[in-house]
Amino acid sequence: MALTALEKHERDAVAVLPAAAHEFFASGSGDEVALDEATAAWARHRLRPRVLRDVGEVDLTSTLLGCGLNHPIGVAPVGYLGLAHPDAEPAVAAAAREQGALYVASTRASTALEDIAAVAGPWWFQVYVMRHRELTERLVERAVAAGARALVLTGDTPFVGIKRRVGSQRIAIPDETFLVNLARHLTGDAAVGRAGAEQDPTATLEAIGWLARMSGLPVLVKGVLRGDDAVACLDAGAAGVVVSNHGGRQLDRSVATPFALAEVVRAVRERPRAAGEPRPAVLVDGGVRSGVDALVGLALGADAVLVGRPVVWGLATGGQAGVHEALAALRDDLAHAMALAGAPSLADLDASLVVPARD
Amino acid sequence: MALTALEKHERDAVAVLPAAAHEFFASGSGDEVALDEATAAWARHRLRPRVLRDVGEVDLTSTLLGCGLNHPIGVAPVGYLGLAHPDAEPAVAAAAREQGALYVASTRASTALEDIAAVAGPWWFQVYVMRHRELTERLVERAVAAGARALVLTGDTPFVGIKRRVGSQRIAIPDETFLVNLARHLTGDAAVGRAGAEQDPTATLEAIGWLARMSGLPVLVKGVLRGDDAVACLDAGAAGVVVSNHGGRQLDRSVATPFALAEVVRAVRERPRAAGEPRPAVLVDGGVRSGVDALVGLALGADAVLVGRPVVWGLATGGQAGVHEALAALRDDLAHAMALAGAPSLADLDASLVVPARD
Amino acid sequence: MALTALEKHERDAVAVLPAAAHEFFASGSGDEVALDEATAAWARHRLRPRVLRDVGEVDLTSTLLGCGLNHPIGVAPVGYLGLAHPDAEPAVAAAAREQGALYVASTRASTALEDIAAVAGPWWFQVYVMRHRELTERLVERAVAAGARALVLTGDTPFVGIKRRVGSQRIAIPDETFLVNLARHLTGDAAVGRAGAEQDPTATLEAIGWLARMSGLPVLVKGVLRGDDAVACLDAGAAGVVVSNHGGRQLDRSVATPFALAEVVRAVRERPRAAGEPRPAVLVDGGVRSGVDALVGLALGADAVLVGRPVVWGLATGGQAGVHEALAALRDDLAHAMALAGAPSLADLDASLVVPARD
Amino acid sequence: MALTALEKHERDAVAVLPAAAHEFFASGSGDEVALDEATAAWARHRLRPRVLRDVGEVDLTSTLLGCGLNHPIGVAPVGYLGLAHPDAEPAVAAAAREQGALYVASTRASTALEDIAAVAGPWWFQVYVMRHRELTERLVERAVAAGARALVLTGDTPFVGIKRRVGSQRIAIPDETFLVNLARHLTGDAAVGRAGAEQDPTATLEAIGWLARMSGLPVLVKGVLRGDDAVACLDAGAAGVVVSNHGGRQLDRSVATPFALAEVVRAVRERPRAAGEPRPAVLVDGGVRSGVDALVGLALGADAVLVGRPVVWGLATGGQAGVHEALAALRDDLAHAMALAGAPSLADLDASLVVPARD
Ligand SMILES: Cc1cc2nc3c(=O)[nH]c(=O)nc-3n(C[C@H](O)[C@H](O)[C@H](O)COP(=O)(O)O)c2cc1C
Ligand SMILES: Cc1cc2nc3c(=O)[nH]c(=O)nc-3n(C[C@H](O)[C@H](O)[C@H](O)COP(=O)(O)O)c2cc1C
Ligand SMILES: Cc1cc2nc3c(=O)[nH]c(=O)nc-3n(C[C@H](O)[C@H](O)[C@H](O)COP(=O)(O)O)c2cc1C
Ligand SMILES: Cc1cc2nc3c(=O)[nH]c(=O)nc-3n(C[C@H](O)[C@H](O)[C@H](O)COP(=O)(O)O)c2cc1C
Repeated sequence: MALTALEKHERDAVAVLPAAAHEFFASGSGDEVALDEATAAWARHRLRPRVLRDVGEVDLTSTLLGCGLNHPIGVAPVGYLGLAHPDAEPAVAAAAREQGALYVASTRASTALEDIAAVAGPWWFQVYVMRHRELTERLVERAVAAGARALVLTGDTPFVGIKRRVGSQRIAIPDETFLVNLARHLTGDAAVGRAGAEQDPTATLEAIGWLARMSGLPVLVKGVLRGDDAVACLDAGAAGVVVSNHGGRQLDRSVATPFALAEVVRAVRERPRAAGEPRPAVLVDGGVRSGVDALVGLALGADAVLVGRPVVWGLATGGQAGVHEALAALRDDLAHAMALAGAPSLADLDASLVVPARD
Repeated sequence: MALTALEKHERDAVAVLPAAAHEFFASGSGDEVALDEATAAWARHRLRPRVLRDVGEVDLTSTLLGCGLNHPIGVAPVGYLGLAHPDAEPAVAAAAREQGALYVASTRASTALEDIAAVAGPWWFQVYVMRHRELTERLVERAVAAGARALVLTGDTPFVGIKRRVGSQRIAIPDETFLVNLARHLTGDAAVGRAGAEQDPTATLEAIGWLARMSGLPVLVKGVLRGDDAVACLDAGAAGVVVSNHGGRQLDRSVATPFALAEVVRAVRERPRAAGEPRPAVLVDGGVRSGVDALVGLALGADAVLVGRPVVWGLATGGQAGVHEALAALRDDLAHAMALAGAPSLADLDASLVVPARD
Repeated sequence: MALTALEKHERDAVAVLPAAAHEFFASGSGDEVALDEATAAWARHRLRPRVLRDVGEVDLTSTLLGCGLNHPIGVAPVGYLGLAHPDAEPAVAAAAREQGALYVASTRASTALEDIAAVAGPWWFQVYVMRHRELTERLVERAVAAGARALVLTGDTPFVGIKRRVGSQRIAIPDETFLVNLARHLTGDAAVGRAGAEQDPTATLEAIGWLARMSGLPVLVKGVLRGDDAVACLDAGAAGVVVSNHGGRQLDRSVATPFALAEVVRAVRERPRAAGEPRPAVLVDGGVRSGVDALVGLALGADAVLVGRPVVWGLATGGQAGVHEALAALRDDLAHAMALAGAPSLADLDASLVVPARD
Repeated sequence: MALTALEKHERDAVAVLPAAAHEFFASGSGDEVALDEATAAWARHRLRPRVLRDVGEVDLTSTLLGCGLNHPIGVAPVGYLGLAHPDAEPAVAAAAREQGALYVASTRASTALEDIAAVAGPWWFQVYVMRHRELTERLVERAVAAGARALVLTGDTPFVGIKRRVGSQRIAIPDETFLVNLARHLTGDAAVGRAGAEQDPTATLEAIGWLARMSGLPVLVKGVLRGDDAVACLDAGAAGVVVSNHGGRQLDRSVATPFALAEVVRAVRERPRAAGEPRPAVLVDGGVRSGVDALVGLALGADAVLVGRPVVWGLATGGQAGVHEALAALRDDLAHAMALAGAPSLADLDASLVVPARD
């Protein structure tokens, strides 16, 4: 069977990348159950298309927390893209801009924020609460100044999940890379600085309000896998959540995101909103590899879906053009699937389009 | 294990046909999930036979929208049968007539309608709403004139599904074949004509009434996979539906038809009918490869089942005789299964005969 | 892993028997789905043993329709045992008698009934309603005269299921074997006689009362797979049913017997009984290969379980001693399993011991 | 993928141990269905972690029937550890003490109880009711005198399950080993003594009260797999239960313990308690091979989980240090998983963290 563009990138990345870099991007935590299940879980859904609907024009546009998007497949925050390609984050940001796709920059980017922002379209900034709270503040201030339109607070990483696969060939992230977005705030001793930039495992839901007040931006919490947790985040001031198990890199055997998504969407919809409180955004990521996967996520109630590794493989194999190709392939595939499903716009993607596979 | 006639045809067709032609018929869209699942889904049902019923005579006859049938396994519309065998559609139509089986001619037939009709028994005509509406009208008029007893409006193909398997060896359908049933209505420029003969993605449920009025024939909608969609089609004037995912060639990961069938039958039965409105017909196709598969479909409420590829492989390997053999094998197998199930007539095939397989 | 006695017999039978004879016994109908599933279905159950019950003595005895049994694992009716071993049915009957196990003789036995009866303990006679009703009567009279204690009317075989596996090496049953229990009633033309001795596909539930009246014996219907059918049989005068899909040799994709058993037991228990009407017997067969399988059947409500092929393989590899060994292994295994389950008698085997496997 | 410490031990034990000893520890009963499913069943659960909880400190401590534990992963009673390593039980007991982990000594220990007690931290004693009741009493008295803090009455072993895998290479346990904890009570004839020391299959629930009164210790019943059985044990005076199928070594096809655990916990919680009656303890064992497995057991309501074979393999490959390594790896893995799950203490592990895996 002819490979899709994404499959080709994934295959070629093995050849293009040094083994350690490849494993860094590809691996998951623990037994990699969550990693393996991420993609499989999308394929455990079946579709209930409609016939004879006017799909002459398929409209993929939407507005998400004030950002106009050409299509609802965005770029998930992925650290250290410099390990994939010298053009790194700017190549990805520029490709996303070309496509009108959302771009989320990682706190662990290997390029200074300002250099990413310079070539990006609408972009969000992913935040970790670091042990040095002041570092966190300074970094967020820079992101705000550089034009980030929202913050994505990653909540599933109090400690970094153990990747057994990488074992002894674990790649070393040099200090200059680890701290690229922090260096200008560090005073003197690099070793102290690096420890301080680690995730703070004592961070709680209160960090949401803190970040919102500090930045003036909407804050989404990434890593949510439960309805009650989504509600707790919103109650604590979040503007939305990203249903994610970190691409199978944090707690292994976490529920696959399509299964968690339905629960989160239900809880968010049932939660009463204060007068004037905008509809919270729900995004999802993990294992999305085709337009049909994306369609399932959107039908289950996500406002957008994010992709991580497909962007990495596109970048590794083709730089900005590779990312462009990957995003375009996903968008075209989604549009084609929506047409065949009888759904000419995102608003037509409702939960009735999806049923669990039987076997 | 000794191969069935159908299995032999399927195996031999690989040898008989040029690779590109074989792939044209065999392939499905996307990852071929729906294709693979089509046959597997029938085998996910188990039977609850009755004992000690008089099955000395097994009666397979029925009347379907006014057509008397010797048995309830008919021929699905399949395009370009000339790629399978020079005798093409007439061989199939003649074999179906010999068996008293329903024959549905495709809009994309590689033989002029009138030549098919000349050798067919009761036959129906499958319609696409084409971009040039007038072409559609002219073609339907010809079908009516040639004696079609019903129209089958295929609703799942606003665009042709992408068959990744065929990849670079995609077969080219020459204009003279594509347009064999349209040429006489085309004025001048063949290129324009071909584009105009493509499916119109803006067609809606209104096309049902339009075709019914234009033709005076009952119109069935093919490609229905949801109960609410079936009801919408009937409300728009359809005389029935064909539960189908186009043999796994349109939206990949569509529900398998046996699972959709139960839902559609329930919705159709629960829908109130206007005074004098006849009972709508429900047919099903996709992956039927044995009499037991057919029995499951009939027990789940279908009035008839259609087969596509088994007819293609029979045609490819044996011309009219091959199709005859395939249809006869299916009919005999169905009769045998009905006897062993304690069901001497189609009316004895009720839903209690079928349960989902456990495993 | 050390093979069980039954596994050894099954393996060795392949070497001992001519291929055609082996296939005759081993094969199933159609795609052999029901055959394969027969054993697998028992293994899809899990046990909920009790602790700290007095299992110093495990009592396997019971009384079934007046026959005292040492243990509840009996011999299913299997035709033409002469193809497995020259000692044929008498060896099996004698082994069953040694074990105090129920023996059911087949209408298609390759030994005259009277010779079987001479060495049997309590035995039942399996009946087909044959096209020549008078032949059926004569045969039943002989069985009654020879001491059969019940009749087992096989209801799932209006026609013999097609065994695709045997294909061209289908074994020919010579007339003298086919008619061994009928010859003395046949007048002249063997060909006519053989046709007359085929199963009558027009037989109905009325045959139950006819046989009961004619024989004065309790009649069980074999092949029942539905609760409503069990009730219909009892209403028509049956003293019990054998839940069976004929070892996967009749309607392929029939439900596996453990799944059908629960439904049948429920229906039989819920059916109101006339005053003085004895509790109907429910037996089950198909794929039982261990004491744990048997325990599941008994816990699900069967009064006894029957085994077919394990007896054949024991006979083929060791004659009477082989059958003895197979039956003893099953009995010992059952007793051991009951002890470990905390169930010292058959009355302690209730449905709470069994749950479906999850996976 | 880099092996975990436990996986390494398990792999290396094959090389280190004589085949017969390895099979003794590794094998299960019957078809080894319960054995294989033990580990797989934990992996059939998925986790629903919480985000943004303060997990700066993860507290694994608890108090179990009066014993303070550093972490909730203890050592299951395993017989004849001398076959694994000359340091045998004392090495295991000492490693458990170092870790603050519960240690349960087996009645079938290959070291005198007093020698185990000398190096152990808080430990419990596993009891079989033996045919000679007086032997049982004497042994329990010794355990009490040596400082056992509770008795674990194993109820699932009226007879020892048949391990087909070991077949002909079944290891012989010499009398001096079998009777190491009994010899001083035996009078003269060793053969009689050995038979008397076998499990008494007539033991009933009354043994619970008998042991409790005799010892003055809390008695837990091990081998419970049903809610009603747990209640029966508690009603008979038990202080708790160990949900176990003996590591797949007794009744094969018993339910896997994680599935039984939920039922037992529910029944125990719903059972009314007398005034002043302490909360019964529920432990679970069988197939636990990672901290995530343990997390699932604790979330489903267990107060502690026990491991058998991981301790054996650690002992075989590294003596006391190997056991230490195994227990430390499990504890660290549990602490890491709890942090990633947003659960900083055992009290935070509730049933909402766990859902069945789909597909
Ligand atoms: C190599 C790698 C690095 C990642 N780095 C971050 C990160 O810095 N911050 C973050 O919130 N998520 C990070 N993620 C998680 C992604 O944002 C996203 O959740 C995940 O990749 C989605 O799954 P997919 O890769 O299957 O599309 C990372 C993922 C990968 C594969
Ligand atoms: C090669 C091929 C061509 C087809 N062409 C048409 C067509 O022209 N119109 C249509 O409605 N369906 C068409 N179908 C779908 C069939 O009518 C039918 O739904 C499908 O083949 C049933 O599945 P089966 O082949 O597994 O029996 C085609 C199917 C195949 C395999
Ligand atoms: C070779 C063979 C011949 C059989 N002949 C008969 C028969 O004559 N009458 C009948 O009622 N059942 C017959 N059966 C079915 C058995 O009674 C029984 O239902 C089946 O063998 C049980 O399955 P098992 O073989 O897996 O134990 C036959 C089965 C086999 C395998
Ligand atoms: C070799 C071996 C010997 C055992 N001996 C005993 C025993 O003497 N008493 C007992 O109650 N359980 C015994 N068990 C069962 C264990 O206590 C425990 O239930 C089981 O090993 C847990 O499963 P795991 O090995 O998968 O962790 C034994 C288990 C094994 C593997």
